[in-house]
Amino acid sequence: MNRTLATETISLIGQKVLLKGWVDIKRDHGKLTFIELRDRTGRIQCVGFNKMSELLTQSAIEIIGMVKARPEKMVNPDMPTGTVEIDVEEYKVFAVPAETLPFDLGKAELDVELPTLLDHRPVSLRHPKVQAIFKIQAVIIDSFREFLKQNGFFEFQAPAITPAVAEGGAEVFEVNYFDKKAYLSQSPQLYKQIVMSAFERVFSVNKVFRAEPSVTTRHLTEIVSLDAEMGFIESWTDVKDMAENLIKYVFEQIEKQCPHELKMFDVKLPQTIEKTPTLSLTEAQEMIFQKLGKDMRGDKDLNPESERDICSIIKEETGSDLVFVYGYPTKKKPFYVYPNPENPEFNEGVDLLCRGVELLSGGRRINDYEQLLKHAKEWGMDTEKIKGFLEAFKYGVPPEGGFAFGAERITMQVLGLKNVREATMFPRDMERIDYKI
Amino acid sequence: MNRTLATETISLIGQKVLLKGWVDIKRDHGKLTFIELRDRTGRIQCVGFNKMSELLTQSAIEIIGMVKARPEKMVNPDMPTGTVEIDVEEYKVFAVPAETLPFDLGKAELDVELPTLLDHRPVSLRHPKVQAIFKIQAVIIDSFREFLKQNGFFEFQAPAITPAVAEGGAEVFEVNYFDKKAYLSQSPQLYKQIVMSAFERVFSVNKVFRAEPSVTTRHLTEIVSLDAEMGFIESWTDVKDMAENLIKYVFEQIEKQCPHELKMFDVKLPQTIEKTPTLSLTEAQEMIFQKLGKDMRGDKDLNPESERDICSIIKEETGSDLVFVYGYPTKKKPFYVYPNPENPEFNEGVDLLCRGVELLSGGRRINDYEQLLKHAKEWGMDTEKIKGFLEAFKYGVPPEGGFAFGAERITMQVLGLKNVREATMFPRDMERIDYKI
Repeated sequence: MNRTLATETISLIGQKVLLKGWVDIKRDHGKLTFIELRDRTGRIQCVGFNKMSELLTQSAIEIIGMVKARPEKMVNPDMPTGTVEIDVEEYKVFAVPAETLPFDLGKAELDVELPTLLDHRPVSLRHPKVQAIFKIQAVIIDSFREFLKQNGFFEFQAPAITPAVAEGGAEVFEVNYFDKKAYLSQSPQLYKQIVMSAFERVFSVNKVFRAEPSVTTRHLTEIVSLDAEMGFIESWTDVKDMAENLIKYVFEQIEKQCPHELKMFDVKLPQTIEKTPTLSLTEAQEMIFQKLGKDMRGDKDLNPESERDICSIIKEETGSDLVFVYGYPTKKKPFYVYPNPENPEFNEGVDLLCRGVELLSGGRRINDYEQLLKHAKEWGMDTEKIKGFLEAFKYGVPPEGGFAFGAERITMQVLGLKNVREATMFPRDMERIDYKI
Repeated sequence: MNRTLATETISLIGQKVLLKGWVDIKRDHGKLTFIELRDRTGRIQCVGFNKMSELLTQSAIEIIGMVKARPEKMVNPDMPTGTVEIDVEEYKVFAVPAETLPFDLGKAELDVELPTLLDHRPVSLRHPKVQAIFKIQAVIIDSFREFLKQNGFFEFQAPAITPAVAEGGAEVFEVNYFDKKAYLSQSPQLYKQIVMSAFERVFSVNKVFRAEPSVTTRHLTEIVSLDAEMGFIESWTDVKDMAENLIKYVFEQIEKQCPHELKMFDVKLPQTIEKTPTLSLTEAQEMIFQKLGKDMRGDKDLNPESERDICSIIKEETGSDLVFVYGYPTKKKPFYVYPNPENPEFNEGVDLLCRGVELLSGGRRINDYEQLLKHAKEWGMDTEKIKGFLEAFKYGVPPEGGFAFGAERITMQVLGLKNVREATMFPRDMERIDYKI
């Protein structure tokens, strides 16, 4: 007898099926025992006689039974299999819990503190609402790849071990590499520009590492970076448009593939409009001043409060939860960002803000070798240590740009999670690698 | 005028197009200059008057011209765009090389030594035959994911930074993690088993790190590991069958998506047959003894020569380039591998050999908590350091197994490359991180 999956049962009313999964919930009602069996597709209600009441929750079992339509008033609209239930005829146990669970997995909300949830990650990963987070994250990553492949981008694997601190900054992990020193990559930036110089349109899904010496709700030491880079652009706005269409595609795919997961979190995806509003930093500061009387004009960047302010203004005026802000002070951004030729003090970098926080960052890059070399020196880069990157630009690189965002941060943002650790299966920070260190 | 891509021109005969790309090859013939322009889809021949002879190769340019059918005798069957050429009307240069190329990119074969090729990776990546390697690798990785998604597997992100040396062995890199010690992951094995215990069928595409203190043609310190794990199996052969179908799917997709790339390497994909031959280690040793008179019976594993021998015998007898060998001595393999209940000295681990080398490794794992704990202790594992892994098995885990293989190794194998560094964009070894260290 072939196995049937939980969600397949809804079209098999009147048939005998073999199901396999975990006993997530068990309820005894007189002579009857109700269990909710969970497999990789979801949960299904099974009804058996009271010998099943001996089953411990989280046992791995198989069930043979008949698929029955539920009476209309018993239909559960919140459950994909809520129209049917299984009349259990026989069952077999593969494995029973060896110990009492550290917390109850049977409730709709997993009511435990974050450290406990992470200390028992193998257990918390079984909870449907925790699983929903990672299903949505998988869709985000997958639709990032899908969209870019559809647009002629080529996937490459960026290295994790690097010879030097490429972008500057002290927040880097050192690796004992035989008798030498190496570092964990902070960003695939320089590698993706190298690969772009050969393949034209490239993307990568790779780990990056930040030795953040602080424990906040938004920082991790290891994250999944979603990176793209494209050559032969006509303007930085080509990069912005690609990023906009990508993010909209990602949101569409979440909506399409994860309606039940979104419902569990009772969240709406960010509202988008046909043309995402786009302001220069100066215009954004002026708008904040005009509308709210807060004078941030001349600041080198938007601070967190200004990010929230500009998002609120744009939301109210246009309905869009997204807004692009471009044109940051050149000297405040990395050496490879392209200065606006008409006003070189400001660059052609662009950030996408969503509901008050930065979601994605990108822009046009310098493609001329001499200009890049000049900037690298002015920014105090060790040009010997980035010679591979510089070499790529010696041999003819067209106008180009790209963008990047973190898989955990966007998952957190979409689901309105309070802490980025919830959006990471095995979060690493200054104090934790699986457990407190 | 919208941009046209090189391979789109074949259906646009008689139309004026705008092309963008790099000048890969330039030939002067009297008054005419022929260039091969490369963009992300491939090369296209363009014919212009002799002012184009000033163009340096590898310049990034755009061309406006008319698509013309080539005369029949001028058709190039080895080139996807070999039926057409572009009559150049005008062109514009975006960027010219600032220096002479370190080697000639214009020949069909890139005739340089491997260290030179790697020292100038940004340049060698522009060569079509080098690009073919990574296009095939991208198809391998992508079809791995596609096949598993079609079969209900869920993608997760395995961590790179780990708290302990999980599988034993000294070949691990140490990370200076704030004021503590951490390690780079040698394998996502324990994490994929944890995630399987919640999601049932899981896979990951993640970096793993091996501090191999030797420089060989087959070893790298950083590789891309393709990992899968599945619960509710009935037997280890379910794992074997999944791996077999996966590998066949990967080969099919390479054949379908990369005919030109395969042709460049003049290679045939491994031959498969409907049921891949499957032998126990003992049977394989007996067969080698019977057919070749070499007595390796009783050896704990197949040595490289025996791997080649069994592959030759199977190829001759069945036509298959693939062969599964299962049932290794339990004590010689990691603690989590499932011992055959009828003969516990041998396990239910399985390797897939292809043309004389191991391509993939996997098998059934121990799913019973008590047995796993006993093995972990017998194998000398520090059970405190793998307590998360062990916890997963406390709460009901069904019979399960999985497999893994390296993206670089299979690319090397498919293309018959001599050195695994050719199958890695930015190979890391004891002596090299981008450059000699």
